[in-house]
Amino acid sequence: MIAVIMAGGSGTRFWPASRKRKPKQFMDITGNGPMLLETLERIGALARDREIIIVLGREHRDEAGALLGNRPVHIVAEPMGRNTAPCMGLGAIYARSLGYADPLAFLPADHFVGDPKAYLEALQAAEEAARRGSIVTLGIVPTRPETGYGYIRRESKALEAGNLKSYRVSSFTEKPDLENARRYLAEGDYFWNAGIFVATPETIIDEINTYLPDLFDGLVQIEKLLGTEQFETTLEEVYTQLLPISFDHGIMEKTEREVYVVPCDCAWSDVGSWASLYELRSADRDAQQNLVDGQALLIDCEGSFVRGLGQRLVACLGIKNCLVIDTPETLLVADLDRSQDIRDIVEGLKKAGKGALI
Amino acid sequence: MIAVIMAGGSGTRFWPASRKRKPKQFMDITGNGPMLLETLERIGALARDREIIIVLGREHRDEAGALLGNRPVHIVAEPMGRNTAPCMGLGAIYARSLGYADPLAFLPADHFVGDPKAYLEALQAAEEAARRGSIVTLGIVPTRPETGYGYIRRESKALEAGNLKSYRVSSFTEKPDLENARRYLAEGDYFWNAGIFVATPETIIDEINTYLPDLFDGLVQIEKLLGTEQFETTLEEVYTQLLPISFDHGIMEKTEREVYVVPCDCAWSDVGSWASLYELRSADRDAQQNLVDGQALLIDCEGSFVRGLGQRLVACLGIKNCLVIDTPETLLVADLDRSQDIRDIVEGLKKAGKGALI
Repeated sequence: MIAVIMAGGSGTRFWPASRKRKPKQFMDITGNGPMLLETLERIGALARDREIIIVLGREHRDEAGALLGNRPVHIVAEPMGRNTAPCMGLGAIYARSLGYADPLAFLPADHFVGDPKAYLEALQAAEEAARRGSIVTLGIVPTRPETGYGYIRRESKALEAGNLKSYRVSSFTEKPDLENARRYLAEGDYFWNAGIFVATPETIIDEINTYLPDLFDGLVQIEKLLGTEQFETTLEEVYTQLLPISFDHGIMEKTEREVYVVPCDCAWSDVGSWASLYELRSADRDAQQNLVDGQALLIDCEGSFVRGLGQRLVACLGIKNCLVIDTPETLLVADLDRSQDIRDIVEGLKKAGKGALI
Repeated sequence: MIAVIMAGGSGTRFWPASRKRKPKQFMDITGNGPMLLETLERIGALARDREIIIVLGREHRDEAGALLGNRPVHIVAEPMGRNTAPCMGLGAIYARSLGYADPLAFLPADHFVGDPKAYLEALQAAEEAARRGSIVTLGIVPTRPETGYGYIRRESKALEAGNLKSYRVSSFTEKPDLENARRYLAEGDYFWNAGIFVATPETIIDEINTYLPDLFDGLVQIEKLLGTEQFETTLEEVYTQLLPISFDHGIMEKTEREVYVVPCDCAWSDVGSWASLYELRSADRDAQQNLVDGQALLIDCEGSFVRGLGQRLVACLGIKNCLVIDTPETLLVADLDRSQDIRDIVEGLKKAGKGALI
């Protein structure tokens, strides 16, 4: 299997631990090493290094180089972020230029998967359907009425594919309110959209030709120059002109092609906030539901997430539901339930002329 | 007036900003400079430097030296802390050896006084009564039903002394419960015991002779050696044998001498905890009642006290009633209402073998 690892994000949702120059995918967020390496290790059973194409931001090339050493993976650097449609298109033409016509698995580099076996089985099932020209997406079996994710609805009739069933997709839906999220969970034919797709390079490029013709023209231009000196300059010229658009909005919501979903129950999380990491790591919490990394002393604390630096001690007394993140340059103390609002802090820093801390 | 500044404490109530090697009296807690210097400046209108005797712990002699430079104050270093009775006895014999027979003002080095004029007037009134052989204490006019202080009850009939009335003391009482504290406040003849005493050296030494004979014997031994090479060694021998005892328990609760209280309404605080400092600095708080020192960014926070280091930014999001104290070696995050329990953290550090952080 050929894997395109999408490592282009520069999110600040894990600020101050994640920074512009070292976003989440390059960090050890879950305690299993940098998420990019974890993603490579997970897919390692299906794809050898030379079958892996990592698409990342140019500003993170050195960071990735330091992590990857001499591993013979392919690296394509985007000059700037333009969301997932250009990223996947670039991955597809790069794979085609390497001579690959088989299905590609497009995998975000910064997700957590608790059950890699289930995940890999779903990818293999998806590969079979994708080989026939379909776009296949993994549908994460929901475990709670989550309002933070988009959903994929399946049709009722299953198609056999490998060991796992796959279904025609009936619709993609935006993040629901709590009432609808509860209904989705109860009805059983809705899955979380994890942004994981499997399709051949030809399918991806054809779809882009149909629905995103400007992107298609750009990709055609770039493809000719792969491996030449003009590649980087032309890539930058093309990307500068592109509008950012996601593969979901640009293609999936419009395509008339057959689209399949393979249900996958693999203890997945997009680890989208400190609170979601806290949820994920329930096994690491103490009896008072505190989650502690680093050197800390907690007295009478409950439900708090304290992440210290190696040497510096963090002492906590009587705090509840609190998030404490200590880094060499900054310290964050927040209500854990407000961790999705860390962007407000990041915006505040920008306004205060402290962009260097982001 | 001769002042004995009692600078011997090694409290940890302002941990982690205060440390064993640099307790509160050597720190800038209120923003007006180190509390010891603030105390000297306050008493400066009544006592010249050479009329000031500072009693401090031997381990803080260098710290004090750095603060005081070449100022011609007298410094007496206790080899170890034995509470206020030995400290005041040592101050008294030291003053006597300098030839002073006039009343001494015994002043804690780590208190806040918002109205120094009222404070100095009360000390002068106390001096007059003390000159006749009485022990005089300043009674702080209570402004709230405080349960954290001991109280002094006065008799009803006032004696004129200087510009201020003074009263015979009817009793000293321990820290009350809230109900009694409310009653004390309503009745109007109770004052906070600030541990500020005025008495002649002779009065102090006589009282010690009567109620603390072991201490008296020790002091007599020490007095002979003042200014000789054996002084330090003998002082240590004597102190090692002494039981710690406060002047309140050892003398004031037993004495049959006339004891007076001079009411003093001087915006006083013993600044005994982070919460009391937060209370004190109401003028420095923002509209959401946050008190911020150093570089910080607060979003949606209320009633919190955030003290950052100079350079390191502290970002706070959605916290309420929280205490955040950042120092180079440790970080404290606590419920502000629990700040009197910081000793639990200090004890926890000792148990965890991290005494170096205290």
